[in-house]
Amino acid sequence: MAELTTIAVDVMGGDSAPRAVLDGIAQALSENPSIQVIACGLPEVVEPFAAAHERCEAHACSEVIAMDEHPANAVRRKKDSSIVVGCRLVKEGRAQGFFSAGSTGACLSAATLVVGRIKGIKRPALGQILPAYEKPTLLLDVGANADCKPEYLVQFGLMGAVYMHQLMGVDSPKVGLLNIGEEEEKGSEFALECHKALAEHLPAFAGNAEGRDLLTGEFDVVVTDGFTGNVVLKTVEGASKTMFRYIKDAFMTSLATKLAALLVKPSLAKVKTKLSPDTYGGAPLLGVKGAVLVGHGSSNARAVANGIAKAAETVEADVAGVIAAKLGEEGAA
Amino acid sequence: MAELTTIAVDVMGGDSAPRAVLDGIAQALSENPSIQVIACGLPEVVEPFAAAHERCEAHACSEVIAMDEHPANAVRRKKDSSIVVGCRLVKEGRAQGFFSAGSTGACLSAATLVVGRIKGIKRPALGQILPAYEKPTLLLDVGANADCKPEYLVQFGLMGAVYMHQLMGVDSPKVGLLNIGEEEEKGSEFALECHKALAEHLPAFAGNAEGRDLLTGEFDVVVTDGFTGNVVLKTVEGASKTMFRYIKDAFMTSLATKLAALLVKPSLAKVKTKLSPDTYGGAPLLGVKGAVLVGHGSSNARAVANGIAKAAETVEADVAGVIAAKLGEEGAA
Repeated sequence: MAELTTIAVDVMGGDSAPRAVLDGIAQALSENPSIQVIACGLPEVVEPFAAAHERCEAHACSEVIAMDEHPANAVRRKKDSSIVVGCRLVKEGRAQGFFSAGSTGACLSAATLVVGRIKGIKRPALGQILPAYEKPTLLLDVGANADCKPEYLVQFGLMGAVYMHQLMGVDSPKVGLLNIGEEEEKGSEFALECHKALAEHLPAFAGNAEGRDLLTGEFDVVVTDGFTGNVVLKTVEGASKTMFRYIKDAFMTSLATKLAALLVKPSLAKVKTKLSPDTYGGAPLLGVKGAVLVGHGSSNARAVANGIAKAAETVEADVAGVIAAKLGEEGAA
Repeated sequence: MAELTTIAVDVMGGDSAPRAVLDGIAQALSENPSIQVIACGLPEVVEPFAAAHERCEAHACSEVIAMDEHPANAVRRKKDSSIVVGCRLVKEGRAQGFFSAGSTGACLSAATLVVGRIKGIKRPALGQILPAYEKPTLLLDVGANADCKPEYLVQFGLMGAVYMHQLMGVDSPKVGLLNIGEEEEKGSEFALECHKALAEHLPAFAGNAEGRDLLTGEFDVVVTDGFTGNVVLKTVEGASKTMFRYIKDAFMTSLATKLAALLVKPSLAKVKTKLSPDTYGGAPLLGVKGAVLVGHGSSNARAVANGIAKAAETVEADVAGVIAAKLGEEGAA
């Protein structure tokens, strides 16, 4: 029998926790026979659930970190919270991966403090797969580091390329720098420094990417600081939501358009799924010694199940191990 | 008879120049009896056109600034280019406004060097109206200043509020700071400094705006540095383009969806127009002594006509005068 991949799951995190998370675990277990889950949460929530499901173990925690708590403080104080405990299970090797739809900041803090950085990585980065048209594009950092140095972005590029190669099967990932023009002399002072550092130290660097290149698939990986990345990610989400509102209005204008809506509904639903942040199963935190994935706060059961499966894939593809090896090889920045 | 508003137009600028620009001037003149145009361009282009159109004067120029020239250098060297000449006409009071769909960088340089900054304005900013759902939102700076100081953003907020009040009739414009969280302690070091400066010096400041708030209409004005603003603007354009590609695919999947496409086409075309950058007639450069508007490089005749009309509205609303007065009053930063 093949070995099972163990994913610790924060059952208490997310707007629809614990219900959506429990349902998501159940889906992930039934869809992936090679996954086992350690459900971390309040005992009255996780124990009956684990008793009723195969390949699921309960790990009782006495605390929960709320969405609005100060991340670093909460992680330091609440040592028995589901987020800190989940990360500790990874640290101790009892789980290989961790998934949470809870406070992103707390997950980043706990992953960095408890799971720990890969040796040589200056800053872990949060990545997000964007639903670009031709093929997916990984944007990072989308919020782990609001202020960055050029050498961080070189490492983000290296880690992003490993992720796209190992997990998405991209042969020679093209890494772009998010900037305000294609020409290398364009940009803020910081962007110019980053361009120089990337050109010197990252073999996969393919030049500047503009905002309009993020959703075409032109680049496999786009690196930026966590401030710009977070703003851009939320802009894409907001733009997609607003577009659907406009389109819904267009379908409501007359009897003919309402008929059209009925006819095209199933096809449009597929587009909506493709564009949904849930589809890609959460944002990987790259640069820590384990597979840590953070889901959207609004994750439903489907998103949680995708996140757990993606965490297992990240383990199986040994993303952290390959990053460590590459770092030694290319010695990036 | 009412006084005419005179707009100088760069006939040589834009991907489809001079044809689209000439057609746009003709449309603007026929739609707006109170506008007259000074067409700046090569004599063989502008002279026959002006001869054939009422309220249109030709101003022959011997040079053209290409899209890929270094903006500041080109403006310094090509003193008889259509962009520099158009700005000089504003400076000399022979025109009150200037419109170009040519090199944005060259327009910014020429407007700053030739038309000149309003006294007290540290940096002019380029604004762009975003097609937010409830009501339009003005984003600035979208590219005039890649590197900014907090006091610039305070002035961007003041100028943006004047624009939305004078031109869009917004009573008490709400100004937001583009940031990565709603809470005031969120953000990069720069964003934190900006938050503080805005809270201290700008009465219209209403807190942080996130990427997802840009297209809801939650804020009337959103300020950011020109790097982030440009990236975000191009992300919105790219997202909208990708969405329409996905939706087009959805309509092509079966006979039923193709029928749906026929039925909803006219309604969807209206949505597309609403989302098009052409609809709002170019990006105003705020902070210079005159109404300067820069159109998209891909401007068609409709976009040029809208840009000319918007430049005239900006003159009539005395945006530059009100900014100068407000600056004296509130003494922002």
